[in-house]
Amino acid sequence: MKQKKIEKRRYYGHQVAWFILLFIASTWQTSAKDIEKWRIFELSLSAEVQGNPFCDVQLSARFFHEDDTVEVMGFYDGNDTYKIRFMPEKEGKWTYQTLSNVRKLNRKKGQFNCTPAQAGNHGPVVVTDTSFFSYADETPYHPFGTTCYAWVHQPENLIRQTLQTLSEGYFNKIRFCIFPKHYDWNKNEPPLYPFEGQAPKAWDFARFNPAYFRHIERQIATLDSLGIEADLIVFHPYDRWGFSDMGREADDRYISYLVARLAAFKNVWWSMANEFDYMKNKADEDWTHYLEKFASEDPYGHLKGIHNAVRLFDHNNPHITHVCIQSPNTENGKKLRAQYRKPVIFDECRYEGNVPWTWGNLTAREMVHKFWTGITNGAYVGHGETYITEMPRKSPFESDDVLWWSKGGTLHGQSHTRIAFLRKLVEGAPGYLRPAPSLTSWMNYPVVSHGEDFYLLYFGFDQACQQIIHLPQGKRYRIDVIDTWNMTVTPLNGTFSGTTLVNLPGKPLIALRIQKQTNDHE
Amino acid sequence: MKQKKIEKRRYYGHQVAWFILLFIASTWQTSAKDIEKWRIFELSLSAEVQGNPFCDVQLSARFFHEDDTVEVMGFYDGNDTYKIRFMPEKEGKWTYQTLSNVRKLNRKKGQFNCTPAQAGNHGPVVVTDTSFFSYADETPYHPFGTTCYAWVHQPENLIRQTLQTLSEGYFNKIRFCIFPKHYDWNKNEPPLYPFEGQAPKAWDFARFNPAYFRHIERQIATLDSLGIEADLIVFHPYDRWGFSDMGREADDRYISYLVARLAAFKNVWWSMANEFDYMKNKADEDWTHYLEKFASEDPYGHLKGIHNAVRLFDHNNPHITHVCIQSPNTENGKKLRAQYRKPVIFDECRYEGNVPWTWGNLTAREMVHKFWTGITNGAYVGHGETYITEMPRKSPFESDDVLWWSKGGTLHGQSHTRIAFLRKLVEGAPGYLRPAPSLTSWMNYPVVSHGEDFYLLYFGFDQACQQIIHLPQGKRYRIDVIDTWNMTVTPLNGTFSGTTLVNLPGKPLIALRIQKQTNDHE
Repeated sequence: MKQKKIEKRRYYGHQVAWFILLFIASTWQTSAKDIEKWRIFELSLSAEVQGNPFCDVQLSARFFHEDDTVEVMGFYDGNDTYKIRFMPEKEGKWTYQTLSNVRKLNRKKGQFNCTPAQAGNHGPVVVTDTSFFSYADETPYHPFGTTCYAWVHQPENLIRQTLQTLSEGYFNKIRFCIFPKHYDWNKNEPPLYPFEGQAPKAWDFARFNPAYFRHIERQIATLDSLGIEADLIVFHPYDRWGFSDMGREADDRYISYLVARLAAFKNVWWSMANEFDYMKNKADEDWTHYLEKFASEDPYGHLKGIHNAVRLFDHNNPHITHVCIQSPNTENGKKLRAQYRKPVIFDECRYEGNVPWTWGNLTAREMVHKFWTGITNGAYVGHGETYITEMPRKSPFESDDVLWWSKGGTLHGQSHTRIAFLRKLVEGAPGYLRPAPSLTSWMNYPVVSHGEDFYLLYFGFDQACQQIIHLPQGKRYRIDVIDTWNMTVTPLNGTFSGTTLVNLPGKPLIALRIQKQTNDHE
Repeated sequence: MKQKKIEKRRYYGHQVAWFILLFIASTWQTSAKDIEKWRIFELSLSAEVQGNPFCDVQLSARFFHEDDTVEVMGFYDGNDTYKIRFMPEKEGKWTYQTLSNVRKLNRKKGQFNCTPAQAGNHGPVVVTDTSFFSYADETPYHPFGTTCYAWVHQPENLIRQTLQTLSEGYFNKIRFCIFPKHYDWNKNEPPLYPFEGQAPKAWDFARFNPAYFRHIERQIATLDSLGIEADLIVFHPYDRWGFSDMGREADDRYISYLVARLAAFKNVWWSMANEFDYMKNKADEDWTHYLEKFASEDPYGHLKGIHNAVRLFDHNNPHITHVCIQSPNTENGKKLRAQYRKPVIFDECRYEGNVPWTWGNLTAREMVHKFWTGITNGAYVGHGETYITEMPRKSPFESDDVLWWSKGGTLHGQSHTRIAFLRKLVEGAPGYLRPAPSLTSWMNYPVVSHGEDFYLLYFGFDQACQQIIHLPQGKRYRIDVIDTWNMTVTPLNGTFSGTTLVNLPGKPLIALRIQKQTNDHE
């Protein structure tokens, strides 16, 4: 019941909800015999082992359900503790047995009962209908994501503030880096490091720091409680610690460790990289290898993407589940979805902000425009915000500002509320929205539809006072004029059919929502 | 002196100036012995001739100046009157002698003295420095034009209103059609027709209506008095009278008549067509022929262009003096000027307005943006305005509104004042502005410069609060922040050199004017 309430409130930014959610998040580590579908069964085992427990101990478990067998890897969590995490995808009785080269960890058996998913638990996000997403329970999922690259590497009070902001319900996905980030406005040391050793560069890549990953998975669990997918960036180039260039063997160990620890979280997505093409020490074949490794080790087949700087990775690769693209040209959504036959997310299309870098100086209006343009071209778009408010003295790159895009915190812009408004419109559609034949002449304004039942038609910055639109004959439609900036929905009087003249407000950022009359008897 | 005063006032829209100018315009038909350089010497001859005076009478004159000879054609002006018009381009004594197959018109001799150009008379516009324009006296000319396709075909009081608006000095060029136009908001009959006959289609293409052309040339003369170039559209497709498809022989006769009557006006440009590619009865070889015909018959070599709808004509044609293009993408100016090595004018880049046609529903901000984008890419841009103010009842295309773009009248928009502001900045530069190497990193914002002395750098809709720019080393610059929308010029404190950080207002439509310190002694 708690869960259901939260779900309903998701959009409305209640200030208290996230405390409750943090509490829920803290309860996922359970050893109860009943495990809810798509939540985590965790087995914790103790053993004192000589040598390197990360490398020398092999541990996995097989989970059995009727004719199904799922094998998952275990991981070392420090303090002589080994763990196995498993996300059951089927209800009913599951049994398991461990396998290990350490006797104390080997042949451990047990069972649990997988109970039905409760309200608000829709399972992991999967690709459906070629170019769309749904949750595993077939509830449609439309990504409206944001980016906070290094938010998990900030002090606890700032993380709390970020989660508070995220709890306000603007977004249902967030991109962030597993590794800390070194870049303008991202120069602070992280509170923890992923490996044993000494900053800046004296790391033992063969020994993970379990506390580091425990900290991250706590955030992932909280995001899940907020209904937010965690789009995890595995590698990225903005690095002063050497994590971007550890070599193939260490990379592989890191990937296996991530999968073993995190794959059981239903809201995890794997993003191979942020700006893969800026990582000069990794070749295309390395990325292909990582994709294959995730595909072979992740038993749940979480979504996998790879984000580019200037060159799009070959998205024909069958392990890439969706096109995650950096490009300001969200009008290309229609082309990309047709080309790759995968869902398309413009995860980075420049950010709303005012920094001296041109990827971060969009007005809110331009950001909103990019979202509407993407959506009405059959794609999805990602948000980010880069506002400097403190006027810097010497270099703008060294200000103490907390930019949402890097550290999280609070939102200063004006686009996120409009994005949430758009999200509500999309989620309110009777089904998935596909690029539709033009409803206009001369200039083909972008339009998506659900069959002939529902249309979203977007006029961008144009300001016509009237528009002729061509609706299907023999059906009657109600038309709402959408002011995408002022977030108003104004129904037009009467119903419409065939070629019809629509009065518009004569200003920019206007869209139409066109819905077939529900009491239609034709 | 009168002329000089008017020149100074051009930008400031005095309400009385154009009455004076109309008076001046009415005085160009002179037979005085002194003819000012680049003004019109006109010889008027009488003869009663049997047959068709337009076709059967051959009349020309040779004008001699020292070693020069210029031959110009005469034309029949009705009432047994034949005229020869000549624009002397050299000072001093000119003699002439007529040639005709009619004895009464043949071997007429005379002379006149060409006096120096007075203030405000800079001669016709010519191409200079590959991609620029100047007047014949080498005064730079930067086209900031508008479009009123059918303004000369409107009632006299509306023409007066249009001239009143034009006298306010926003524009120094206007595109309009010689033939009347049939199109949405352009459905009224013209007061006069170009040929003898009966509307709608019973014309004798071999007999011109001199009153029709006299009316047009009166407007051309008035435009000249206002410092406005007349970009005459010879053919266009929006026609219900048959003028767009008269056949080669009639077309040629029409062109010869135009040249004989109008070429002596220094402010005439020849635009072969509006949207040549929408005239399905004329092939590319027809347009090549027309260009050659103008080139061979016009003794002054007036500028020649050809305007497209969707397909650019082959602008390698040597008779085309400048690229007159319809395209919304004014950022392509740099590419086009490099490709064709000619001046580039985006004479139609969509219009400010609110009509249901997408070529006419730009906001003023978008229009201003297109101008700045074109200018900072080394090209020029044309204005047009299409506002419906009266709310139509049935069809938006049938309203009684007077749209500037079709009929002239008054301006209702907000871009023209900003265009005049930009024009002042360009005219205030120390010389021609060429695309310059980028002053910025990451994103190359468009920038034009005059050598290393003067730069215009434009940030478009971006809203950075600071920008690093890379100025030449060893020179000191003053920087003005230009608010292109609010039309303010705000000098920054101090002087700048090399790589420097500039504070910006953090809002869209900002540009920088960067000028070398004049008291520089390096």
